[in-house]
Amino acid sequence: MERGLFALPWVPVNIGGSDLLAKAWFGDTQYRVLLSDLNTVWEEEMTTDDIQSRAQDLNKRLRAPTPAFFSHLCSVAQPCFSSEDDDQISTAHVTLEQHGDNLTVKLKSELAGLPFYWEFRCTTTPVGVVCRHLVRPLLAVSRVLQRQVEDLAALLARKDAEIQDYQENGAVLSRARLQTEPFEVHRYRENFFTQIIPQMGVTLDSLGFDSDLQALYMTVSSGKTGQKRKHSPDSSPAAEDNHVSEHHLHITDVPTDVGSSLASQEQNDVKASSGRPQVADRKQAVPLPSAAGSEERSTSRPKKKKAVGLFR
Amino acid sequence: MERGLFALPWVPVNIGGSDLLAKAWFGDTQYRVLLSDLNTVWEEEMTTDDIQSRAQDLNKRLRAPTPAFFSHLCSVAQPCFSSEDDDQISTAHVTLEQHGDNLTVKLKSELAGLPFYWEFRCTTTPVGVVCRHLVRPLLAVSRVLQRQVEDLAALLARKDAEIQDYQENGAVLSRARLQTEPFEVHRYRENFFTQIIPQMGVTLDSLGFDSDLQALYMTVSSGKTGQKRKHSPDSSPAAEDNHVSEHHLHITDVPTDVGSSLASQEQNDVKASSGRPQVADRKQAVPLPSAAGSEERSTSRPKKKKAVGLFR
Repeated sequence: MERGLFALPWVPVNIGGSDLLAKAWFGDTQYRVLLSDLNTVWEEEMTTDDIQSRAQDLNKRLRAPTPAFFSHLCSVAQPCFSSEDDDQISTAHVTLEQHGDNLTVKLKSELAGLPFYWEFRCTTTPVGVVCRHLVRPLLAVSRVLQRQVEDLAALLARKDAEIQDYQENGAVLSRARLQTEPFEVHRYRENFFTQIIPQMGVTLDSLGFDSDLQALYMTVSSGKTGQKRKHSPDSSPAAEDNHVSEHHLHITDVPTDVGSSLASQEQNDVKASSGRPQVADRKQAVPLPSAAGSEERSTSRPKKKKAVGLFR
Repeated sequence: MERGLFALPWVPVNIGGSDLLAKAWFGDTQYRVLLSDLNTVWEEEMTTDDIQSRAQDLNKRLRAPTPAFFSHLCSVAQPCFSSEDDDQISTAHVTLEQHGDNLTVKLKSELAGLPFYWEFRCTTTPVGVVCRHLVRPLLAVSRVLQRQVEDLAALLARKDAEIQDYQENGAVLSRARLQTEPFEVHRYRENFFTQIIPQMGVTLDSLGFDSDLQALYMTVSSGKTGQKRKHSPDSSPAAEDNHVSEHHLHITDVPTDVGSSLASQEQNDVKASSGRPQVADRKQAVPLPSAAGSEERSTSRPKKKKAVGLFR
């Protein structure tokens, strides 16, 4: 389970109206979910037996074995823990409850024409989990980005050498506005610290974890940075394919916002922290053949009604 | 205390032979220490009364009030928790003991000719502390570095436009080797992910937290990025001056290793994780007038001997 979770990035989500970072792995009738508001980190890990037992508690009439309803649980739960970029929409009614150290994500969906309830009952993770899934990868990401900055600064020095050679041989610009200042790393860094960073409005509260950062996070977390295209064998296709394919896109088809202005940067931050549509108010019908009624109506159906064999 | 600690970066240290990241704030007869091996994070926070009580327990003959010995404690303890770049050397014998969730740093130094013992008894921090002092700042640092990468890529595009103008007006290079390829962000990013990162040997175990990263960490942590030169009023001059002045240097006098090769990057990593000289084996005499004897001899001195009024 830990391995499956390592292959996934953190993504900004909005669960029941709250902005959080999420990392969720759904396997073969088991799952592990991590959530964070950057003040704390919660998690829940559930095996097949745990899931069966809770499903029974929450859905008294449910008599199906775990595999029979787990795919439905995945289909309504995964969108809640996925990036908005995935365009996944949960058909479940989602609420979030925090009591002390516990954070519970409650889902109400419809399965075979009857309401299906689920709760992700997350508790505060041990510090070791925070270190493995946030501190260490973020430190590695920072080092990788530092290296990228060094690389680009070295490239700029080479551009300046080329420009200087043209100029020393008498070349002049046809459009003066194209002239650039020679890049000086000291001056650039000082300006960046004193002018750019303050304007960026970097806040420690921001849940900004955009797709580029997700791609870097996954690259350093995978531990086999040259073999990103391999799927880890123990993760479910449902969970793994979504994320890995998403990030292959980011790695090879890099966003072209490189020259982005301060404005677009801020836009990204805003989008990351609050732009995700809330799913709490949506009550779409489950696209199952028998799911014609509303949730309210289905609860008043006769108990003997049997739809696809999950309930009795 | 929290505020004083926020103004400090994490620094790689070697304590009693173990590589750790440290963040230690020493105030006016109080301190707070954070240590991490990136698997967990430990901390100890001590007030004047706590310090007085422990000093009494560990040094039975000590009768001085806390302020009288606290400056000595700072002088021997601070170098243990400071970056190797500070060139601070502790005169104490330092050992590290881990028992379960507890990490104890034991110091044995010499004060007024008698042995002076101290123990930093650190316990696992709550997740909230890890979030405040590691997760949130590292996420902010990553975003700042992403922005820097975007900035530099935009500058490269401007250089290319200037070069293209020269070329279109017939300029030729006098030295062909100065010619650069036009910068293409997609190709660069793909190459960086597939070629450079794997060669960097980024490991999640690395405690690499170099001075540039420290400067960025402090900038985002300060929350007032435009006013870095102000000292926070509640931190001790001893602790604050060392670090702030160190980082002013980094901000204005940026290291010139911008074009650093893979080799020097690796050198940095090695240096950060294991290059700090171990202080455990050093037993220099404390530079006090009466500190002439060795530790062994001083323990056998007659109990009545009184040196500078700290012991009776």
